[in-house]
Amino acid sequence: MYSCSEKRMEDKIKTFSKFGDAGHGGITRYSLSPEAIMARNEFKKRMEKIGAKIEVDDVGDMYATIEGTDPGAKRIVMGSHVDSVKNGGNYDGILGVMAAMEVLETVKQCDIPHRHPLTAMIWTNEEGSLYPPAMMCSGIVCYDYLPEDIRVKFKYEDMMNSKSILDPTKTFGMALESSGFKGDKKYRLSPDKYMCMFETHIEQGPILEDNGNDIGVVDCVLGMFNYRLKFFGQTVHAGTFPMPKRRDAFLAAAETLCYLHKEIDALGIPDLVYTTGEVVCHPCVHTCVPDYFDFSFDARHEDPKILEKVLDIVKSCANKNWGNGCTCEVEKAWNRDTVYWNKKLVGFVKEAAEETGVTHQYIHSGAGHDAQFCSYVIPTTMIFVQSKDGLSHCEPEFSSVKHCTEGATVMLNAVLKADKEDEI
Amino acid sequence: MYSCSEKRMEDKIKTFSKFGDAGHGGITRYSLSPEAIMARNEFKKRMEKIGAKIEVDDVGDMYATIEGTDPGAKRIVMGSHVDSVKNGGNYDGILGVMAAMEVLETVKQCDIPHRHPLTAMIWTNEEGSLYPPAMMCSGIVCYDYLPEDIRVKFKYEDMMNSKSILDPTKTFGMALESSGFKGDKKYRLSPDKYMCMFETHIEQGPILEDNGNDIGVVDCVLGMFNYRLKFFGQTVHAGTFPMPKRRDAFLAAAETLCYLHKEIDALGIPDLVYTTGEVVCHPCVHTCVPDYFDFSFDARHEDPKILEKVLDIVKSCANKNWGNGCTCEVEKAWNRDTVYWNKKLVGFVKEAAEETGVTHQYIHSGAGHDAQFCSYVIPTTMIFVQSKDGLSHCEPEFSSVKHCTEGATVMLNAVLKADKEDEI
Repeated sequence: MYSCSEKRMEDKIKTFSKFGDAGHGGITRYSLSPEAIMARNEFKKRMEKIGAKIEVDDVGDMYATIEGTDPGAKRIVMGSHVDSVKNGGNYDGILGVMAAMEVLETVKQCDIPHRHPLTAMIWTNEEGSLYPPAMMCSGIVCYDYLPEDIRVKFKYEDMMNSKSILDPTKTFGMALESSGFKGDKKYRLSPDKYMCMFETHIEQGPILEDNGNDIGVVDCVLGMFNYRLKFFGQTVHAGTFPMPKRRDAFLAAAETLCYLHKEIDALGIPDLVYTTGEVVCHPCVHTCVPDYFDFSFDARHEDPKILEKVLDIVKSCANKNWGNGCTCEVEKAWNRDTVYWNKKLVGFVKEAAEETGVTHQYIHSGAGHDAQFCSYVIPTTMIFVQSKDGLSHCEPEFSSVKHCTEGATVMLNAVLKADKEDEI
Repeated sequence: MYSCSEKRMEDKIKTFSKFGDAGHGGITRYSLSPEAIMARNEFKKRMEKIGAKIEVDDVGDMYATIEGTDPGAKRIVMGSHVDSVKNGGNYDGILGVMAAMEVLETVKQCDIPHRHPLTAMIWTNEEGSLYPPAMMCSGIVCYDYLPEDIRVKFKYEDMMNSKSILDPTKTFGMALESSGFKGDKKYRLSPDKYMCMFETHIEQGPILEDNGNDIGVVDCVLGMFNYRLKFFGQTVHAGTFPMPKRRDAFLAAAETLCYLHKEIDALGIPDLVYTTGEVVCHPCVHTCVPDYFDFSFDARHEDPKILEKVLDIVKSCANKNWGNGCTCEVEKAWNRDTVYWNKKLVGFVKEAAEETGVTHQYIHSGAGHDAQFCSYVIPTTMIFVQSKDGLSHCEPEFSSVKHCTEGATVMLNAVLKADKEDEI
């Protein structure tokens, strides 16, 4: 059993937290921004210092590899992303990169024998905060290995043309070209060169903390569906139009939201989560009754049968009279099935957690991660680290140095178990 | 009894509808835009053709005056605005200008004797669509005559610095300078030069149509209050945070909106209108529970005691538990008391409507108009013209040529009654 260094981890957390420091304890570090490039250069500097070889693929994904003793063995890769949402925290994504670096540094420092080459990597543009969509570059790289219906979403040319949400004259492709991090397609993660993948990540929820556990042994990424509920009324003047004749799309949406909570909560499913986070209101002026309102509906659960029940309730909203005569359309945006991690790798993480003595439990991932696309290419799994108060994608996001280091230690020992295998 | 010309009115409607034609039967004609300047030039051309003298004040308000027989008599002014909201209709505002032009043209054409000079006018920037706030230039001009607490709102310098909502580097003052319509302050509407004011406007509601009446004899602009209801929750990740611990600000707002409708409707007040037209949601992404939501609350009624009852319900929302533990703040934006039109002028409009044989009724104005500020300076009243389906501030907005001409005819005859007076 080997242990990573809390001191070294703390130094990394402090250093990387500077790149994009937004002044309130968190960061804004859009993919390929000057701040993200600082983080990439720091990664390169630290990895070259321990003798790792740096490769960059054609979408900017970075790979730092130290050789193993078996020249014919495939690489074991660990990684995550360095980009953040606007006013995000110091742990989401970057922890997986720092943990991977920490594993390589520990292996070198302690001279830990290993057969396979070990790679720490950075996926480009996981958040998609500046250039949508999220998980863009794991999507592009894993493209050829994905089922037909998902392929379209991450077409290389389309992704290069993705417009900046801050300046539509700038594209992801332009940012990539000017970043100095556009490499060669031959370096992409592929099953002929890579044996398996580990991603360490903060939990982003309160379950580990509530249960008093340090580490989550992740078994799957939850299946989900995402719909839009759209309401159509009539815009009239706030002062001149009698109440009984109004058809108010905002009222229709509010009634529907209350109905959804009532009906879905009555199903009594403990692990279900559903979210209505994005709204559109038109014309959205205080002197007009809204003629249009829509909101997103995102539901997640491991069991597709449960999701089917929830979807039935959502779809039933289309046939009701909301807001005194508004019409409602229920439109599918996308869905995904539950993605189960490789059982053998999950077992290695569980054993490593037991051996290192951290408190731990099995846990599902409710959020999407690059690992999810990666699992279409090679056996993949994830390790979760306790999040304070379950907060993430915001500046108060926090995980302790102890927990971050424990995540790296569990990953190191799980990797060493995988290292004994020729195939997973 | 004199009548205006349907043929001439139709020609004006057709001509002015071209200035800013948005291609779907309506117009976008922001104040001082090239389209609005075309409308101003058309006004000038037509008024100069009948021998009217054109004056422009320091905020671009235009006055076209024909002399009366009494050299010492004050002017009687009629007018409204030529600017529109985005994708507005061909009647809101411009009808009042066309009706004023039509009155002057009829007086000249029929050689109608009158003692007072008669003025047709254009108020600048009534809608405030590009440069907020609404009713900007009637606000500036009537500044010195307004109660202390309203004065601050329309301070000249602040208004000149009002930023374009489309381009924050442009201000109203810059648009005014470059428009060629910045005149002299000495031409402003004032009580020493003007005796009284009439404004003809579309109803913007369905009441006249529902009652089968052509014309509304407006008696007041309804009192109103405008509040914001703000909800504070906690942003957490859509996939990772259990439902029982969530504090969803959008759900809190939806529950509150349903509660408000239930409680206020239970008061059973027939003429009350209230509107929640503007919303803000943060962070407004489908993968996050909203930590902030607010909406506007606008209520209008003639009786301040009724408004007080409604406000009590709105204020009570602050003390309730919405959305599983969100807090709610209820914040005053502004209010106004009911503004009653001059009783003598209202009587003239009523008599004129009776004499001209149009079907008519008393009606309140639910919307604000330049006439409202004007009434602080000189005796003022309004005439409403039937609106099809009560629609306005949208491209389907419509009033028939017959109704528009009837509005002008009623105004003409009411003006001739006022013309017999030395003071109102």
